[in-house]
Amino acid sequence: MATAELLRRIAAAAAEQTLPRFRRAGAVSNKQAAGFDPVTEADREAERAIREIIRAEFPDDGIVGEEHGVENPDARRVWVIDPIDGTRAFISGVPLWGTLVGLVEDGKAVAGLMSQPFIGELYYATGQGAFYEGPGGARPLATRATTSLAEASLFTTTPALFQGALRDRYDRLEAAVRLPRYGTDCYAFAMVAAGHADIAVEAGLQSYDIAGLVALIERAGGVVTTWQGGRPEGGGDIVAAATPALHRAVLDLVGD
Amino acid sequence: MATAELLRRIAAAAAEQTLPRFRRAGAVSNKQAAGFDPVTEADREAERAIREIIRAEFPDDGIVGEEHGVENPDARRVWVIDPIDGTRAFISGVPLWGTLVGLVEDGKAVAGLMSQPFIGELYYATGQGAFYEGPGGARPLATRATTSLAEASLFTTTPALFQGALRDRYDRLEAAVRLPRYGTDCYAFAMVAAGHADIAVEAGLQSYDIAGLVALIERAGGVVTTWQGGRPEGGGDIVAAATPALHRAVLDLVGD
Repeated sequence: MATAELLRRIAAAAAEQTLPRFRRAGAVSNKQAAGFDPVTEADREAERAIREIIRAEFPDDGIVGEEHGVENPDARRVWVIDPIDGTRAFISGVPLWGTLVGLVEDGKAVAGLMSQPFIGELYYATGQGAFYEGPGGARPLATRATTSLAEASLFTTTPALFQGALRDRYDRLEAAVRLPRYGTDCYAFAMVAAGHADIAVEAGLQSYDIAGLVALIERAGGVVTTWQGGRPEGGGDIVAAATPALHRAVLDLVGD
Repeated sequence: MATAELLRRIAAAAAEQTLPRFRRAGAVSNKQAAGFDPVTEADREAERAIREIIRAEFPDDGIVGEEHGVENPDARRVWVIDPIDGTRAFISGVPLWGTLVGLVEDGKAVAGLMSQPFIGELYYATGQGAFYEGPGGARPLATRATTSLAEASLFTTTPALFQGALRDRYDRLEAAVRLPRYGTDCYAFAMVAAGHADIAVEAGLQSYDIAGLVALIERAGGVVTTWQGGRPEGGGDIVAAATPALHRAVLDLVGD
């Protein structure tokens, strides 16, 4: 099982690879000049470290990651890894990137974590519930009680994610909420799970961009699906909301 | 003088008021429901605590703040306070807000600080230079060497800041850079000073939104002015850039 202790160990192993490469001088220009690329190194090495832990604990489980492909593709339990979600935040010095790891059983997320090691935050979900550990102490995660768009805050990375008809729908949603905010990547979904924000929307996600976050949001009382209301573990256009009623209001506005 | 020790003391006194009110459950809905408003409380109490320290050390200095008006308005040395820059980040749980304090002598910023106490970061400038203290250790601040727009990253809070002709100019700038990023408030200027980002632009700033950041950027090697090239201490439409050449390229694109 994915215990809290195991998830903490996974987060710590990833942090050992990501943190020394965060805010490393010349990260971007060196990449372009000489093929040296701390963020790609951090991505690869963090995923390698995470895979080692999972493989040792659960040799028969499947593993899917952004960097190193698929292991045990026919397994019923699959670990889905994004070693650094929010690469552009990472290369810009902004500590809103995160390490995401989700455990998916028969297609449904049952555990997961988002770790932001520079701040020292861990958001995670196990069979026991969803929890926060970091500055301010440890506590269970619980979404806010917001039910109406007019009272809701809305997070997305950038409106430029939404093209064509999606953009029209996104603009309608942004116009309907109280407070839109940009620039958040995976951090937005953790803020919904923790009760600090009400809605997070993104478009064109990969499975590994969302699988680690699904159990967090669901166990905290929120709802996360595709814009069409389907399961989110496969990625795509994703909406997370603090309550079922708020989620319904979002889908009514942006769904097909 | 504004010593490092004094600036640390100011940041700590403000954090005692802001941190216990950050991510406080129901912050926003309670405000609307019952007039209870942790962010306004945090703003007022942090500014009060900062003023107490300054008044005790420098009773003849001027003090200007967002919350409590002007003291000694004719003083040659004026302390300019924004207890919480990035109120919307604060109420959304996102730790990119900051406490800003600047010391302005004869209209020119000579010292300042941005403190982000949830992460535990302090960016500050004194007569000795500009410095960072926080996760990863302590070090001098130094901007990147970027000189061309095509290699530059660009931060702003939201493109919606820019209206009418300003928006056209902003859009030109965004199209010219390598990597635009939103959602950063004061944190963007600290990232420029620290060499993680290249350009920060905002529109319609108050004096207290920028005065604390000017000495940080200048002592780190960057340039910060209005979009017309004037001194930034009075606020307005502001651009900060990592190098004089990059700053010139931005003004050529967005200036009158």
